[in-house]
Amino acid sequence: MCRKAELARRKYLHKDCIIIEGTVGVVTTRHEKVEGAKQEDSITVPDFNLGNGFKELLESEVGWDVVFRVGDETFRAHKSILAARSPFFRAQFFGLAGDPYLNEVIVDDVHPSIFKAMLLFIYTDELPDVHDTTSSSHSSTATNMMQHLLVAADLYNLDRLKVFCESKLFDELTTTSVATTLALAEQHQCAQLKAVCLKFAACPANLGGNLCC
Amino acid sequence: MCRKAELARRKYLHKDCIIIEGTVGVVTTRHEKVEGAKQEDSITVPDFNLGNGFKELLESEVGWDVVFRVGDETFRAHKSILAARSPFFRAQFFGLAGDPYLNEVIVDDVHPSIFKAMLLFIYTDELPDVHDTTSSSHSSTATNMMQHLLVAADLYNLDRLKVFCESKLFDELTTTSVATTLALAEQHQCAQLKAVCLKFAACPANLGGNLCC
Repeated sequence: MCRKAELARRKYLHKDCIIIEGTVGVVTTRHEKVEGAKQEDSITVPDFNLGNGFKELLESEVGWDVVFRVGDETFRAHKSILAARSPFFRAQFFGLAGDPYLNEVIVDDVHPSIFKAMLLFIYTDELPDVHDTTSSSHSSTATNMMQHLLVAADLYNLDRLKVFCESKLFDELTTTSVATTLALAEQHQCAQLKAVCLKFAACPANLGGNLCC
Repeated sequence: MCRKAELARRKYLHKDCIIIEGTVGVVTTRHEKVEGAKQEDSITVPDFNLGNGFKELLESEVGWDVVFRVGDETFRAHKSILAARSPFFRAQFFGLAGDPYLNEVIVDDVHPSIFKAMLLFIYTDELPDVHDTTSSSHSSTATNMMQHLLVAADLYNLDRLKVFCESKLFDELTTTSVATTLALAEQHQCAQLKAVCLKFAACPANLGGNLCC
């Protein structure tokens, strides 16, 4: 089963239609006899796995050339990978006013667990599970983590991560969280999130009324 | 797998189209009214795009720290990205006997167009079109390119690229290419490709006989 919102998020809903994607393999049979032996066989190529090697590099710290001191934690990373993914880091290390010899960066404005999750996203385009990222002393909920990640994504110009956080915050929008989320959307120029928050808040049912929009 | 004649018999073929029937069950949720404002909206997250930033970095050469001289061409690249994707490069730059200060590498045994395609694969996990890669003076066919790429993939320990080439070579296997491909499979320990080549070659029809296996 798949929720309508999830279908919409994945672009499978178009007006009143649902888009169903499938793969149809067509086997040409002109050379059926000659290629008889081929028809029955195949060589399976492993799945796309670009992120695996980068994740392993991040975790092993092999060849690191910059260290981030975030609170009481340190993270070793690779300037070229950071520059490939974040315009902020590209400018910081290789921009006109950047410093390619910079090998230590102090980060004051991001929690270590959030910075760690952001680094993983930079290296793999994916986020860890909330429980893998938040330390036991940090009572972050998924919503809280997404709020902080959105702030970090905005700071480091990680556009896809920012929209990913907006989408997650929207999915988890409740009457309790809508005010904070709306304020965050306003502060960080999240036009889509702001619009859906306003629409959600304007619905009488969500404000304790009896009638829904 | 379903034969075309069978599809036509069941009236699933209409001109150039195949008709695919499915059943979609729609479950209305109990909280639909309360979440009315959410159900209609969505925030669309851009597709997974890890390769884009790395491709752009490779093409722009921003922050490069190693140059490869391949024939009469030079390619600037990033050691950490190469190390993330290729055990060969990881050992060359950061292994026990490696040299992290190495910033120029002479490559004698790979054609520039093949090295360029391999670099793109390292950065993006994808290959370019054959025509984008081969220069006008290099009369490479797709098969020829895949044969050379397989050799390079084996040399630089790019396992997925190697299997990808094996798969392509198998797809393009003909009575003309089977001997070369089999020899290549033997030389580079491609067990799967070797097995299918032997099976293909053993088919009497592929050896000029009148009967097919």
